[in-house]
Amino acid sequence: MNNIGIIGAGSIGLLFASYLAKAFSVTLYTRTSEQAEVINQKGIILQKGRTQRRVSVKALPISKWKGTEELTIIAVKQYQLQSIIDHFRNFNCSPKNLLFLQNGMSHLTLLEKIDAATILVGTVEQGASRVNSNTVRHNGEGTVNAALYKGKPEILLELAEACVHIDFPFTIKDNYYQMMVNKLIANAVINPLTAILQVKNGELITNTFYFAAVKKLFLEISSILNLEDPIRKFRDMIRICKKTGENQSSMLKDLEEGRRTEVDAILGFLLDEANKQQKSAINIENYFYLLKGKEKAKEGVN
Amino acid sequence: MNNIGIIGAGSIGLLFASYLAKAFSVTLYTRTSEQAEVINQKGIILQKGRTQRRVSVKALPISKWKGTEELTIIAVKQYQLQSIIDHFRNFNCSPKNLLFLQNGMSHLTLLEKIDAATILVGTVEQGASRVNSNTVRHNGEGTVNAALYKGKPEILLELAEACVHIDFPFTIKDNYYQMMVNKLIANAVINPLTAILQVKNGELITNTFYFAAVKKLFLEISSILNLEDPIRKFRDMIRICKKTGENQSSMLKDLEEGRRTEVDAILGFLLDEANKQQKSAINIENYFYLLKGKEKAKEGVN
Repeated sequence: MNNIGIIGAGSIGLLFASYLAKAFSVTLYTRTSEQAEVINQKGIILQKGRTQRRVSVKALPISKWKGTEELTIIAVKQYQLQSIIDHFRNFNCSPKNLLFLQNGMSHLTLLEKIDAATILVGTVEQGASRVNSNTVRHNGEGTVNAALYKGKPEILLELAEACVHIDFPFTIKDNYYQMMVNKLIANAVINPLTAILQVKNGELITNTFYFAAVKKLFLEISSILNLEDPIRKFRDMIRICKKTGENQSSMLKDLEEGRRTEVDAILGFLLDEANKQQKSAINIENYFYLLKGKEKAKEGVN
Repeated sequence: MNNIGIIGAGSIGLLFASYLAKAFSVTLYTRTSEQAEVINQKGIILQKGRTQRRVSVKALPISKWKGTEELTIIAVKQYQLQSIIDHFRNFNCSPKNLLFLQNGMSHLTLLEKIDAATILVGTVEQGASRVNSNTVRHNGEGTVNAALYKGKPEILLELAEACVHIDFPFTIKDNYYQMMVNKLIANAVINPLTAILQVKNGELITNTFYFAAVKKLFLEISSILNLEDPIRKFRDMIRICKKTGENQSSMLKDLEEGRRTEVDAILGFLLDEANKQQKSAINIENYFYLLKGKEKAKEGVN
């Protein structure tokens, strides 16, 4: 594998492009041609701690994507995924191998319909913030979990192997569903609470009242996901919350910066599951309304 | 009735003192002797719209209260009430007639034990903000509802009659419980939601997602209070929310100014009731945790 395409040049797309460019020939597909131009001229600036370095990456607007790369990583938000999939169809081309990095689990139903040789899914445990259209800040060391959703595992093994050498670890997971459930739990508890309370992740643990709200929300999620080992999953979630204690969650950042959040992919998915199973989801529903309301208020259309 | 004592010189105490001084000889009892001194020297400044006027009122620190006035209005927060009642006991004097203006309903159990000729309770539908220790801003025209809790109604009739002439209406209610339930509903829905979302009251109606959360919270409260006419009560609450649309709720102001909120008197009361009746109160409990957590964070002790 030589060529990798990355669709989406937000924080995750810029982060992946700047690291993977050390091992692969990367093409970054951007939503706007302006952003592609900036990246072609100035490269991607990768900031980490007090250092920063410039990485040369070829960038093209998404309209130029033809699916010719051996692997295409889809690093757009869940709510932008449908338009990307439509784009695949319009070009009437079958992408070879795809890796999807969306939060939540509502995109799994979309993946079923995609005609590709191999589909991988990943969950990103790397802190990254987009500073501007060609600058990304990498906060802290994490990993990218990846698992096979459909097809053959070779491409995943090759990717993980190459990434060992570039200080950007991939952790291969056997069970994509379990992997995504783990991420979903953290996203569904930490994101809504921090976004509504406007606090850093760590405060959910240190403030005993917030922690009481964390536990109630977790129990509802645990019931809906039919978790077999809820205590272990709870501890895992707490570990993530502590490890990222000084960070603002992505949902809090989205709200603060007037962007749409991933509430539909995260809490919307859980509400659908609760409905299907006829289970109670009072807290999830409440946070769903509060967050959709916040989004609406930020749009200035309320 | 000539003499009225008012205990508590926050927004409500200052507002009542500045209006009632037109018809009665008012003594305002303050928590600190410094505040009493300022009021004695500079009077109370009552701001309304673009005008302001100075009202001379006698002020004394609370330690000087002897219960000699014919009516004493208790205008402290619910969480300060116990110390006032202890003070009554320490002086070993039976206050003649008392009017309690606290929000919530958790103070009703305290009132049962007070030895006074007449006890009135009131709910304030006047917008007031304390600007500084001797200045209060009166926002909008409202009323004070008052009802007999124990004793004889004469003092209430006399008060309402006198207040007709001073542009500070008292509305007499037959049933103190219904009166307080009405206020509790508005307080329990509007205060927590606006305080957590940091929005003005009116946004709860205009933002359709916030409105969905309003309805869910109201339904829980309605069930706990065993409301006989929930639709009418819901409409009443909406009317208050619209009428005060441009206001910040007291709980939002309390949080913004780092003060303790009335969450115990309002949501705490409802949680106790829910427990007694073994009813579900998932949303109420959640808002209780979020608000207690916000209070704790503001104290800087989390």
